[in-house]
Amino acid sequence: MARIRIALAQINVTVGDLEGNRAKIISWMHKARDNGAYLATFPELSVSGYPPEDLLLKQHFLADCQDCLNEIAAHSKDMAALVGFPEHCDGKTYNSAALMADGNILGVYRKIELPNYGVFDEKRYFHPGDSPLIFQLGEVRFAVTICEDIWVEGGSSESCMREAGVGAVVNISASPFYARKHHVRLEVLRRFASRVGASILYNNLVGGQDELIFDGGSMVVDRHGALVCMAERFTEDLLLYDVEAVDLEPGRTAPSRKDSAPTVQVPEPKRPLAIPAPPLRVPPELSETEEVYAALVLGTKDYVRKNGFEKTVLGLSGGIDSALTAVVAVEALGRDNVVAVTMPSQYTSSETLSDATLLATNLGIRLITVPISRIFRAYMDELTAFLGEGPPGLEAENLQARIRGNLLMTFSNRFGWLVLTTGNKSETAVGYSTLYGDTAGGFAVIKDVPKVMVYQLAEYVNAKSERPVIPPSIIERPPTAELRPGQKDEDSLPPYHLLDTILKAYVEEDRAPEEIVRAGFPSELVIEVVRMVDRNEYKRRQAPPGIKITPKAFGRDRRLPITNRYRPRPR
Amino acid sequence: MARIRIALAQINVTVGDLEGNRAKIISWMHKARDNGAYLATFPELSVSGYPPEDLLLKQHFLADCQDCLNEIAAHSKDMAALVGFPEHCDGKTYNSAALMADGNILGVYRKIELPNYGVFDEKRYFHPGDSPLIFQLGEVRFAVTICEDIWVEGGSSESCMREAGVGAVVNISASPFYARKHHVRLEVLRRFASRVGASILYNNLVGGQDELIFDGGSMVVDRHGALVCMAERFTEDLLLYDVEAVDLEPGRTAPSRKDSAPTVQVPEPKRPLAIPAPPLRVPPELSETEEVYAALVLGTKDYVRKNGFEKTVLGLSGGIDSALTAVVAVEALGRDNVVAVTMPSQYTSSETLSDATLLATNLGIRLITVPISRIFRAYMDELTAFLGEGPPGLEAENLQARIRGNLLMTFSNRFGWLVLTTGNKSETAVGYSTLYGDTAGGFAVIKDVPKVMVYQLAEYVNAKSERPVIPPSIIERPPTAELRPGQKDEDSLPPYHLLDTILKAYVEEDRAPEEIVRAGFPSELVIEVVRMVDRNEYKRRQAPPGIKITPKAFGRDRRLPITNRYRPRPR
Repeated sequence: MARIRIALAQINVTVGDLEGNRAKIISWMHKARDNGAYLATFPELSVSGYPPEDLLLKQHFLADCQDCLNEIAAHSKDMAALVGFPEHCDGKTYNSAALMADGNILGVYRKIELPNYGVFDEKRYFHPGDSPLIFQLGEVRFAVTICEDIWVEGGSSESCMREAGVGAVVNISASPFYARKHHVRLEVLRRFASRVGASILYNNLVGGQDELIFDGGSMVVDRHGALVCMAERFTEDLLLYDVEAVDLEPGRTAPSRKDSAPTVQVPEPKRPLAIPAPPLRVPPELSETEEVYAALVLGTKDYVRKNGFEKTVLGLSGGIDSALTAVVAVEALGRDNVVAVTMPSQYTSSETLSDATLLATNLGIRLITVPISRIFRAYMDELTAFLGEGPPGLEAENLQARIRGNLLMTFSNRFGWLVLTTGNKSETAVGYSTLYGDTAGGFAVIKDVPKVMVYQLAEYVNAKSERPVIPPSIIERPPTAELRPGQKDEDSLPPYHLLDTILKAYVEEDRAPEEIVRAGFPSELVIEVVRMVDRNEYKRRQAPPGIKITPKAFGRDRRLPITNRYRPRPR
Repeated sequence: MARIRIALAQINVTVGDLEGNRAKIISWMHKARDNGAYLATFPELSVSGYPPEDLLLKQHFLADCQDCLNEIAAHSKDMAALVGFPEHCDGKTYNSAALMADGNILGVYRKIELPNYGVFDEKRYFHPGDSPLIFQLGEVRFAVTICEDIWVEGGSSESCMREAGVGAVVNISASPFYARKHHVRLEVLRRFASRVGASILYNNLVGGQDELIFDGGSMVVDRHGALVCMAERFTEDLLLYDVEAVDLEPGRTAPSRKDSAPTVQVPEPKRPLAIPAPPLRVPPELSETEEVYAALVLGTKDYVRKNGFEKTVLGLSGGIDSALTAVVAVEALGRDNVVAVTMPSQYTSSETLSDATLLATNLGIRLITVPISRIFRAYMDELTAFLGEGPPGLEAENLQARIRGNLLMTFSNRFGWLVLTTGNKSETAVGYSTLYGDTAGGFAVIKDVPKVMVYQLAEYVNAKSERPVIPPSIIERPPTAELRPGQKDEDSLPPYHLLDTILKAYVEEDRAPEEIVRAGFPSELVIEVVRMVDRNEYKRRQAPPGIKITPKAFGRDRRLPITNRYRPRPR
């Protein structure tokens, strides 16, 4: 048979939900067959969800995954499927893909290249595999790879695939998102396809898992490195593609004579290939702002829903961070599932208060107003005797923020609403926040979004609707925490465009302070920013999880000690 | 020369404090020489502190470490030294030990076995080394190993050491503490020494670093597996030992003919060996309770001091957890550096309040009393309209705990006191705590201590002083959070002796619930405990760091997803 229809099932599974994931995989397998596919592929570790982390250290978890895989295999009737699962064998655990057809598991591929950097800890759990899996379906020879396998250039499997006459390489992935990574991925696919001289069928995961977003964008790249078709991003999708033997490099349609790797024969389905071939679609490209916004919406929706919450609550200050967070939450969950609370103090201006009200009206969400002045006074009445001489300082500012955190948590505990926090990456980096105050909550929507990008997202939100959702005065007003009279962020922090550039260099790129100074920033400014980042590690350690959208987010991605006296030497 | 005096420098370095660590290493090198040593050894990664975590991803950090190492080497006059440091070479980073003498670096050993489990992430940072380092000093051949190298049985270096006629193996370590691990370590040393047929000189780190305690206990085990001498535990110490050529296995005093590995010749100091040989001391063995108590004291002291704090503050409830925490803090920091705050509510009994006062008096610490009832009422006055029908519930209990958290944080922000939290491992495991309430603070002293062990420690504290420091009524009263009338822990939780046993099996040993039931626990109880542990991952993620004293602590040691729908299948 000269054509083989493949369905790349870009599904959204949930970590640990073995029964749910199994049901979804089986249902999408049937959907693929209904669409004429001979082979359906599923993302890396679909059975367990990705990353399962230390669940992989539980023997009963591994046994349950194996049972689910066997149950899935029993459903592979009149078709083949490739399903990612954690495999436990002879005391070792592997990140594996099972090739199944007609109710049987025909072979298992074990991931060879295990990432152990950034957010990845795969060497904590997995032993590496050591041999390729090549299978023949009709006239086409396929090789199986898992995620990282194709990111490492010149692996031993590449020459093996060439020698074996492989025409198409399947890669099942769980590749986490950051802004513009999709382009990096496409480049990796192009280079791999050109090196190996085979098409590549790239099946990525989609969905949110704690801090990670998997953005989908599964795709097919031909042996010349050209993008052929692509699934939607940030949503489930079934990408159909007919591998045609005539498209393959000459000499690759028949099994190679030099049998460097044993080949698994996959039975062809007992049905003719449906014609015509599925259309080759490539969705329109997303701008950086568009994809970050989509990531925030998907990440919020999946965190809230996968953790069993329905409603959320957040504090609306009248500032841009909480405004953007509210917009994202409404888009992710619907207006009925977002409750806003505004908590004015004596320092709250009438403008910010009316802006908060206007935003809530624009979004159509419920707004509760709880003033904090009397509560604040009750604290101070009890405390004054113990606070010593001198005017109120930081402790009074933080106390106001903590009263607000308590109020939100009280709503959360009473009604089961998840508290969304509203801090951005710039303030998270320098610790411009109150622990147990504005950082108190279950999920930090824009935690990894630098302030300058917060503005871009706000403009984008307004531009895409008929009339501005976020009142322009929220965007235009200089940022302020409103915790003391006349306070402005820029009293304590450098202007955000400078701050964000320095933070990118220091936090994301691990540049030395002197390098940053040489790039044109004032020395005192750089030293002060670095000092603030370093000394606030303890705050970040107690922060709620939030959505990673940059190459290096605070969290699993960046593991610095709290106890850390390092100060770079002048060079 | 038939005898070679070795000094194992069991020092307490600080992560990132390159200048401080360098100065300490040089000063202990001189101290070793003053004690007649020809060779001084230092713990794993002494130059950087252990574990430096993602500091190792900064190029300038690695360069600064190399500079410090070179400066240390320049001080190795008339003696040799072995110093652990992170080495960066040709784009790769190694966990290395530099052998230096008379101002020069004579050779570098690179750790071969890199642990990447439990609290360890060494494959995130390091490439493994691939060759042994053997050196000759006088008539003795030494081999160098680093920590994990001797924990993996039958590594390639072992046969190499035998073939090369190595008489003594140096192991520099940073081996973190848990209760009774010292015995495990001694067994590892015994087995290694017997396998290789050489003495082993084991130089461990001492000190606290965030959640980890390094307990020292450096020791020498002879080639028959017998313990020869041992340093103090939980404190800095210099352990002196004379390796005698006559003690070595026959044939091991001269270089082996079969030169399987190149041998570095270390120049002998130009001074006679001082006699007599240093006394062979072995400190008295510590009970489990004694070593856990010592670990808590050292961990608290080092976290507070290494992070630049002087004073601490904690809430004293009149319960046993806060009582033990206060005792540990006073032992670690001195009575003048611990301030207690008692924050009675309408549910606080006069007994707990007077117990808190008595404890503060016994410890000689300042006690501040701040009632919370009026503050609580101020919150409720503002909130009642929004909380709907029905009696107050969990939200009112949590609010009281959060008011207390806020009060402590206000003292912290005003005076720069570090807040110590008082939650134990049992309640941390099942989430019997209030996020931003009793969990609010910088350091969780007894976070990894199960409740049953809290009682043991309290009894120990009282037994070792003339009269009870902790009032007996604190130990005898049934545990209560006192957040509603007549509340007892056992209304919500199983009895602690049952709970702790189930938690050990589930959390520390990753046993399946059914296995635990088969071990003799009621099924509903096990299921309920497991459910509580699983659903409270989000609380633990926002908890402050605390001292690891069990084989598996919450923190880096146990990495479970928050979004996790796994429920084991019945088998």
